[in-house]
Amino acid sequence: MSDIVYDIPEVKETAVRHTLAVLVDNEFGVLARVIGLFSGRGYNIESLTVAEVEHDQKLSRITIVTSGSEMVIEQIKRLLERMVPVHKVNDLTTEGVHIEREVTLVKIRNNTPNTEEALRIADVFRARAVDTSQDSFVFEVTDTSDKIDAFIDLMRPLGMTEMARSGVVAIAAGKKK
Amino acid sequence: MSDIVYDIPEVKETAVRHTLAVLVDNEFGVLARVIGLFSGRGYNIESLTVAEVEHDQKLSRITIVTSGSEMVIEQIKRLLERMVPVHKVNDLTTEGVHIEREVTLVKIRNNTPNTEEALRIADVFRARAVDTSQDSFVFEVTDTSDKIDAFIDLMRPLGMTEMARSGVVAIAAGKKK
Repeated sequence: MSDIVYDIPEVKETAVRHTLAVLVDNEFGVLARVIGLFSGRGYNIESLTVAEVEHDQKLSRITIVTSGSEMVIEQIKRLLERMVPVHKVNDLTTEGVHIEREVTLVKIRNNTPNTEEALRIADVFRARAVDTSQDSFVFEVTDTSDKIDAFIDLMRPLGMTEMARSGVVAIAAGKKK
Repeated sequence: MSDIVYDIPEVKETAVRHTLAVLVDNEFGVLARVIGLFSGRGYNIESLTVAEVEHDQKLSRITIVTSGSEMVIEQIKRLLERMVPVHKVNDLTTEGVHIEREVTLVKIRNNTPNTEEALRIADVFRARAVDTSQDSFVFEVTDTSDKIDAFIDLMRPLGMTEMARSGVVAIAAGKKK
């Protein structure tokens, strides 16, 4: 027995945020399988969006924002690529500059002492009022996740009652010469 | 045996499109279970988006657009409500007027004979150029699914090379007096 406390430095890789674009067959159960791959192994999904992109070829594009050590990200990509209904996996984070956007609908109480300030903030964030009633406004705001986080943080104390947020869509930027 | 052909009218309920807002615990595996409920029973998912809405209470909101007979829709709602991590299911389609939006990023070739027409259409649809290079534009467009379908149909023959689409977010409109 000893009282010496060993100060062993923790070997811990930093988690990095990666955005993956995954082209899959638009078939029954493919989304469930892709999500199952993450939840079954404890891999994190920060955001997921999916939509059909080629109607004729029955293809869908899933955009997944995940985070983990570089080793985990590589593992995720390898597992996705091996799935039969997966045609292509693009890691937008490592492949150069890319554009990310989310849309969010935010409902704010109307006719309160905070209404004027809420409208001013909406204006700054280029949010559009898509519904107006005596009791509430619904704003539509499309931006990066960071900007949407900031918008929500500002709106929450000003009478925000409800919101619906899409998660991230992403696309590689064009090559600049 | 008889040669009489009985012309029995087919009893077939029309499939209707419903938009559901589902508030769930933001826990590991909940999304996989919700999607599993649909894929396991052959229920259709036209669109699905998910994002955290209450960080403190660890709640996420899933917006699902599904279609089926009224009987199937009722069954889906009942099954969702019975799941432990589901707090609330709102059928926005039956609960009055609601707002739906999607964001889509569309990449179009630049410097082609079609570029001018593509820019004109982007302008009509209030699409914003979020990236421009010698070879391509990336447009961001936020609108209803119908409008986005129309935008994509027009852009596809004008040099569309890639797109990423979020799926639907939805929120109930304010009550009009």
